[in-house]
Amino acid sequence: MPTFVPTPASIPPPNAQLRLKDSPHSLPNYHPLNPLAFILRAAQIYPEKVALIHQDVEQPVVYTFAVWAQRIQNLAYALINAGIRPGDRVAVIAPNCPLIADAHHGVIAARAIVTPINTRLKPSEVAYIIEHSQCSLILVDHEYTHLVAGTKVPIIVSKDTGRQADPYEEFLTMGRKFSQEKGWPGLEQEADENAPAVLCYTSGTTGRPKGVITTLRGSYLAAVANAFEGQMNRTSTYLWILPMFHAAGWTFPWANVFAFATQITLRTVNYSQIWNHFLKSGVTHYCAAPTVQVTAQIGIVNDPQAKRPPQPITAIIAGAAPTAHLIAELEKTGITPVHVYGLTEVNTYGPFTRNYEDPSWAALSLEQRARLMARQGHAFATADDARVVYPTDGDLNAPLKDVPRDGKTVGEIVTKGNIVMKEYFRDPDATAKAFAGGSFHTGDLAVMHPNGTVAIMDRSKDIIISGGENASSLAIEQELSSHPHVLEVSVVARPHVRWGERPMAFVVLHPQHADKWKGRHRLFEKELKEHAKDRLPGFACPEWVEVVPELPKTSTGKILKLELRKIVAKL
Amino acid sequence: MPTFVPTPASIPPPNAQLRLKDSPHSLPNYHPLNPLAFILRAAQIYPEKVALIHQDVEQPVVYTFAVWAQRIQNLAYALINAGIRPGDRVAVIAPNCPLIADAHHGVIAARAIVTPINTRLKPSEVAYIIEHSQCSLILVDHEYTHLVAGTKVPIIVSKDTGRQADPYEEFLTMGRKFSQEKGWPGLEQEADENAPAVLCYTSGTTGRPKGVITTLRGSYLAAVANAFEGQMNRTSTYLWILPMFHAAGWTFPWANVFAFATQITLRTVNYSQIWNHFLKSGVTHYCAAPTVQVTAQIGIVNDPQAKRPPQPITAIIAGAAPTAHLIAELEKTGITPVHVYGLTEVNTYGPFTRNYEDPSWAALSLEQRARLMARQGHAFATADDARVVYPTDGDLNAPLKDVPRDGKTVGEIVTKGNIVMKEYFRDPDATAKAFAGGSFHTGDLAVMHPNGTVAIMDRSKDIIISGGENASSLAIEQELSSHPHVLEVSVVARPHVRWGERPMAFVVLHPQHADKWKGRHRLFEKELKEHAKDRLPGFACPEWVEVVPELPKTSTGKILKLELRKIVAKL
Repeated sequence: MPTFVPTPASIPPPNAQLRLKDSPHSLPNYHPLNPLAFILRAAQIYPEKVALIHQDVEQPVVYTFAVWAQRIQNLAYALINAGIRPGDRVAVIAPNCPLIADAHHGVIAARAIVTPINTRLKPSEVAYIIEHSQCSLILVDHEYTHLVAGTKVPIIVSKDTGRQADPYEEFLTMGRKFSQEKGWPGLEQEADENAPAVLCYTSGTTGRPKGVITTLRGSYLAAVANAFEGQMNRTSTYLWILPMFHAAGWTFPWANVFAFATQITLRTVNYSQIWNHFLKSGVTHYCAAPTVQVTAQIGIVNDPQAKRPPQPITAIIAGAAPTAHLIAELEKTGITPVHVYGLTEVNTYGPFTRNYEDPSWAALSLEQRARLMARQGHAFATADDARVVYPTDGDLNAPLKDVPRDGKTVGEIVTKGNIVMKEYFRDPDATAKAFAGGSFHTGDLAVMHPNGTVAIMDRSKDIIISGGENASSLAIEQELSSHPHVLEVSVVARPHVRWGERPMAFVVLHPQHADKWKGRHRLFEKELKEHAKDRLPGFACPEWVEVVPELPKTSTGKILKLELRKIVAKL
Repeated sequence: MPTFVPTPASIPPPNAQLRLKDSPHSLPNYHPLNPLAFILRAAQIYPEKVALIHQDVEQPVVYTFAVWAQRIQNLAYALINAGIRPGDRVAVIAPNCPLIADAHHGVIAARAIVTPINTRLKPSEVAYIIEHSQCSLILVDHEYTHLVAGTKVPIIVSKDTGRQADPYEEFLTMGRKFSQEKGWPGLEQEADENAPAVLCYTSGTTGRPKGVITTLRGSYLAAVANAFEGQMNRTSTYLWILPMFHAAGWTFPWANVFAFATQITLRTVNYSQIWNHFLKSGVTHYCAAPTVQVTAQIGIVNDPQAKRPPQPITAIIAGAAPTAHLIAELEKTGITPVHVYGLTEVNTYGPFTRNYEDPSWAALSLEQRARLMARQGHAFATADDARVVYPTDGDLNAPLKDVPRDGKTVGEIVTKGNIVMKEYFRDPDATAKAFAGGSFHTGDLAVMHPNGTVAIMDRSKDIIISGGENASSLAIEQELSSHPHVLEVSVVARPHVRWGERPMAFVVLHPQHADKWKGRHRLFEKELKEHAKDRLPGFACPEWVEVVPELPKTSTGKILKLELRKIVAKL
């Protein structure tokens, strides 16, 4: 690290008090759960420990917990000075960098609601979110100011330098000045643990994005669960590959602090930088999701720099089950995959279930093990149950009935409890529909295995009705992925005269093997069909396979099956 | 382990549902925090994993999570069948064994309040607790039936066999029958997370014991914190050396299950059994407190079987700070001491603060390190702050004012938040007094160091006013303990013509060195005074030292300074 001196406003005064003002009706034996508590505790216990490293930029910065806590406090005061009141929305548009890390603590310290916006959206989509969230201020990274060019909402630009002349740093300095050194005791503790913490917008492939509100209580409990499930502690180092704007970084902005871990932010998914950190920065944990990250995973393990790092690394994977190929590649480089499942939006604060490995699996073949690891598993540490229930066909009051635990009957995953969103923002109808029967409806179709393991079959619209049988495009994709030459695959229904529908697979070849099949795609397609026949029932075998250079995706990396269906419709 | 077959009533039915009935007004995005959730989750995720081992008895038993969960369910139904209603108290009098482990889950499954009673009390003391708690039923181990000989409250005796003819097993079997196989869904979830979980009685050296009520929410959060701070997981094995009746085992009855750890129960502190488990059962964690356990610690490390176990072991130590001697002995055998502080009663659910070690300490001498490790440290993972405030002299409404962070000014430790008891049972006056100024008053005197570390000086009555200076008997005891020949030491004030008071030390010699000083106690007393002079200010040096064969203690192993003061009064 080059020498870096934080701005004068970032330096805490001697004997800084690290306590918020109690809310007026605080009780001796109750404190509202709030993830803001973590940074205050970390700054008190390990003030000199490195909290945040942002290194792969022209002007690197590094903050200790004491300095970072001061910056977060400055941000809270700056927001209050800018007119932000409890419950207001403060948007942030940034890649992984200190600005967005600060926002996850500083905005809630001002008792406002963090509203992260996906940097990959189009200006019109961003405009919709700004309008719908009615946000009062936007914190924006210099690279993304074009996304808010026309807005009337005040913006604060960060040049991501951490140096005094940076407008964001000027904003923080002003916050410090405005505080009149009242410090943390000048900021009031939010009395209601069910107050909103984050407003994230879904990136649905159809319709307008919906705003998901999560609470302080839920964020606290989910963050603690993530730190526990990841067995994180003060010797952990977390690398930000997952965008922090994605479902509030699955609560890792707080989980890392709860565990006293060091965080490293990367503006982009750059394999060379990633491997540099794996090999030289002692990285122990990273999250990866969804599809784009699976590609990233493959990118990571295939990078020429890839070799076993000196320390063990845990990769927390969601969005798509890790394939046998990926598991093998990860394990070869000393990376342990942990498969978790949650809504790709924050409806469940990131992970809601985890695939809990059983020691007996060690004796299984890689393929058998991958099949078990592909299941979504059981409820996460602080989550209430995940159930699989019969569809209620839109009847909001119909009681929910569990499908039998037979590993066959397909139903919908519903979730409940502290790790479920508060509501859809300004959309009571959508909220009521999502909470029909008293549980949150995920829209994911799954079976329940006899041991209580949830295993996703598909999103409802992705089921293929082939010869009267329900074929899961996800199950087919999983089996096709087990072919070592397949990098990515997506399966959709294609009309069939005799069977009604039949699966069609779109396949991207693995770069290491693509040359081998150059000009011989037909042959590969035949080989992949044979591969499928050994593994799938007849009705689920793809009738058609097509090798393509890439798959159509949304800005968050979800595969756009809609586009594939359009292609199929023209065939 | 010899072959053991659980009773037929302990075997869960196929496809057992591991979900309680939702409370009538349950919400999709909130579930009340309740540590009962942990056993249901463990039985679902790792049903075949060993949960509980009780081996060092004539008739050993071992239970998997699936079987244990069924037994807990049976207990809940048996209690309901016996007329127990939500909020009723169910007492349990037992050493560490399955009965008391079951009770921590089964009683709260019946929505009743677990009331553990110290097995070392006299029958009259037990009678007082039975009367004061108004308990409706007593679960009692066969070895302790004499403690409840005269009671009119119904009792269920456990012979600690796990075999069908055991009256406790008959009780469970009856519970199973009464359930009519309605299983867990036949038991309702407690809707109020602030409902009482445990009623524990203090063992104050003066006056009647007080009943401390803790909540489900507090127990849940404290248990999660203990599992996290101990970095426990499914490969952990916890050995019960701390009595489970002591402050609800510091919430470890639930923390272990949350982490999917295996628990081993020992009826007595038997070093040979302890070492057998350290060396052969893969023990990774144990708790030890208070003074009697420090002696036990010394007993553990001095046992002839002591040698480095194949796995690392974490010893969670409270009640008294680990001495340099103990730290050295523990580390020599590969045991890592973690120093925590909490009220010896459940006022704070076990640990409330932890001594967070700093990597820089590795470079210090053992004595310097021990001095830092002796401090009580900072707030525990899910605890709110611990503060040190000026005494308010009994004024219940006086605002609390923090002492300066100078490491010198003595004040009282006050605690706040989720890990503080709900109330003193049937004693609103004592509750109001304990919560004066909106925080819980611990009665422990301490200083606050500049880095926010709390360090106990003494209980208020244990301060010695020597020449107008406040001398902490605890600080003196710590320095005297650093002499390698000292096993235990207790310091009290003795009147002095010139100085008002002067410290007098009562010392028990270490068995390994006792012979050396036989008949030469005067010489040792002189040597110890010299040792003190190098380490303590003049006013804190003991004017008198007396070698004694043992120190007077309460049934829970607290040193009775009152008795020492009586001796001093006669001198």
